[in-house]
Amino acid sequence: MEQPQAESPTTRAGATGADATGAERAAMRRALELAARIPPRGPNPRVGCVLLDADGATLAEGFHHGAGTPHAEVEALRAAVGRLGPAAARGATAVVTLEPCNHHGRTGPCVDALLDAGVRRVVHAQHDPNPAASGGAARLRAAGVDVVGGVLTDEARALNDSWTRALELGRPLVTWKVASTLDGRAAAADGTSRWITGRAARHDVHRLRAASDAVMVGTGTALVDDPDLGVRHAPLTGPQPARVVVGLRELPASSRLARAAAAGETVAQLRTHDPHEVLEQLWYQEHRRVLLEGGPALAAAFWRAGLVDEVVAYVAPALLGVGASAVADLGIGTIADAARLDLIDVTVLPQDPADPTDTPTVRLTLRPRKER
Amino acid sequence: MEQPQAESPTTRAGATGADATGAERAAMRRALELAARIPPRGPNPRVGCVLLDADGATLAEGFHHGAGTPHAEVEALRAAVGRLGPAAARGATAVVTLEPCNHHGRTGPCVDALLDAGVRRVVHAQHDPNPAASGGAARLRAAGVDVVGGVLTDEARALNDSWTRALELGRPLVTWKVASTLDGRAAAADGTSRWITGRAARHDVHRLRAASDAVMVGTGTALVDDPDLGVRHAPLTGPQPARVVVGLRELPASSRLARAAAAGETVAQLRTHDPHEVLEQLWYQEHRRVLLEGGPALAAAFWRAGLVDEVVAYVAPALLGVGASAVADLGIGTIADAARLDLIDVTVLPQDPADPTDTPTVRLTLRPRKER
Repeated sequence: MEQPQAESPTTRAGATGADATGAERAAMRRALELAARIPPRGPNPRVGCVLLDADGATLAEGFHHGAGTPHAEVEALRAAVGRLGPAAARGATAVVTLEPCNHHGRTGPCVDALLDAGVRRVVHAQHDPNPAASGGAARLRAAGVDVVGGVLTDEARALNDSWTRALELGRPLVTWKVASTLDGRAAAADGTSRWITGRAARHDVHRLRAASDAVMVGTGTALVDDPDLGVRHAPLTGPQPARVVVGLRELPASSRLARAAAAGETVAQLRTHDPHEVLEQLWYQEHRRVLLEGGPALAAAFWRAGLVDEVVAYVAPALLGVGASAVADLGIGTIADAARLDLIDVTVLPQDPADPTDTPTVRLTLRPRKER
Repeated sequence: MEQPQAESPTTRAGATGADATGAERAAMRRALELAARIPPRGPNPRVGCVLLDADGATLAEGFHHGAGTPHAEVEALRAAVGRLGPAAARGATAVVTLEPCNHHGRTGPCVDALLDAGVRRVVHAQHDPNPAASGGAARLRAAGVDVVGGVLTDEARALNDSWTRALELGRPLVTWKVASTLDGRAAAADGTSRWITGRAARHDVHRLRAASDAVMVGTGTALVDDPDLGVRHAPLTGPQPARVVVGLRELPASSRLARAAAAGETVAQLRTHDPHEVLEQLWYQEHRRVLLEGGPALAAAFWRAGLVDEVVAYVAPALLGVGASAVADLGIGTIADAARLDLIDVTVLPQDPADPTDTPTVRLTLRPRKER
């Protein structure tokens, strides 16, 4: 820990996590569990809330179900009222995984709801990193509510890791998916590329898509590979990710993406080659997690702009010798400038035992080294 | 098991493993342990031998220490004689991990030594796959000795896996070592390549060398990289592997390989481009395990000739985008003809924690799929 606890913005202005009671810490663990019931997708963080009475017994629980639905605090307050009547939360303690919000979005500020309900004490974990929504703790304190921050902050931050990082960066997080042979080829000499990786790897890409708010390709890939970009081979909670095509060329009406658009799916073409502009538009559309599925030219543009946050590389135990490279020119001229990545995970996605033509695939999850 | 036990050459002519006593099976486990005391290198198999008296008690033990030293049976017989006098092994049972040899190499046939010593019964594991040495079991039987084969055969074969496979192929086994970035580059655009992989990976290559009888590069690699090819960063049992340079170009006297030759190390230049001819010459020199360290052109020639038995790929979590490929043209034109490999092992060789400029490396061990 490089930064001492006392200097974090959460705790500077008031009570710290050490001031929470045992019942409150237990309730926070429960609130974290509730928050984790939905996958980390969409513009909003995952939040859980447990209301305790003066004796530390649970009055009600709630968690946020996604953008446009009530926040966790409001859900818990409604549950308490439904069970015990209008004064249910008077004098209660709200234990919530994120500092209560102080802004009018699709729903009113949670701070108002807590004050209106007569909550006497608020124990929260993560400080709200969203500049538009923060200030909740200070407003509660000003209204005479006991506020204790910094309880299980690390766990709460981990719960909303991608959301927090995106907010800190002020742009969507970008995961670059790349698939190749062991010798870095994305296609054979004649341009054929189906399939380089194994079935489990191809399905794993659907898992990545299902965890993304938007899936993006360049027009070149859209025209050559005619991808659908939809989630079919993985569980999906919420809507299909937005399908995004970057570049100037038109897609034919017969393309899978045009047909998905005609069928009512969200498909957008961004007519630019500037990665910053792409992310600005996606951010404005409330996308926080973008999966960049290629091609190499688009990926290289994002890489060179420093806009790749994670790389998921599917490496097939196969050799082609020649053929199109999976990675394009990154502007690197000498070995000292090689783009180094931290290795987060290596997993072998197994061959389908019933299909001798299938292949296992090695999945590497990597993050660019920070010093670059 | 596709082939019934009774049809193996070991057991067709006589008693099978089921006829061995408990004491004999225990002695075989001990003999396997003894055999494994030296690493699997050089022209000879690893062999262990335990002599039992009529009551199943151990009289003596022996194992083969490498080419030019006594075979395991002879070592055990000598130990018995040294302990108990000239008639020590009369009526004894010899438990040995490999069918006793029947040929005059650097030492006399073990069959003669066993008969001369008056051994009454021989229990062996693996049948001798060496056509020049086999027939030992039949000669012993003809001389009236009880012979039981097929005891712990799988374990014994695994003990000498590379030796057995080389004998079955009638040529040295070839392991191709290749090191690259995640995108298949062996050098940056300006030709620099030190270092792509991490320290642990570079040391791991020395382990591969130490397990080889010969280490081979093409003259191109020898001239460009000026490698030493010696074992320095791994334990070495026995001599340095022979250093072999393949190709027509002369190496300067100042090169590391020329200096190693001047210092008395075995360095050979094979003036051919034909991989079959290379392996024939190395086989004649009693090399059974050859490490092919590149470059890409030599490796591609071996691959295209179907003469690569194993690939050890060191993949650094780094990208170069452009630069020389680690794998050259393998004659593959379309994805259906991609060279598929079986994935034997994936291991992450960690970064040196004391060196922030170091990198972990992913080591993949692979074998060409048999159907190719």
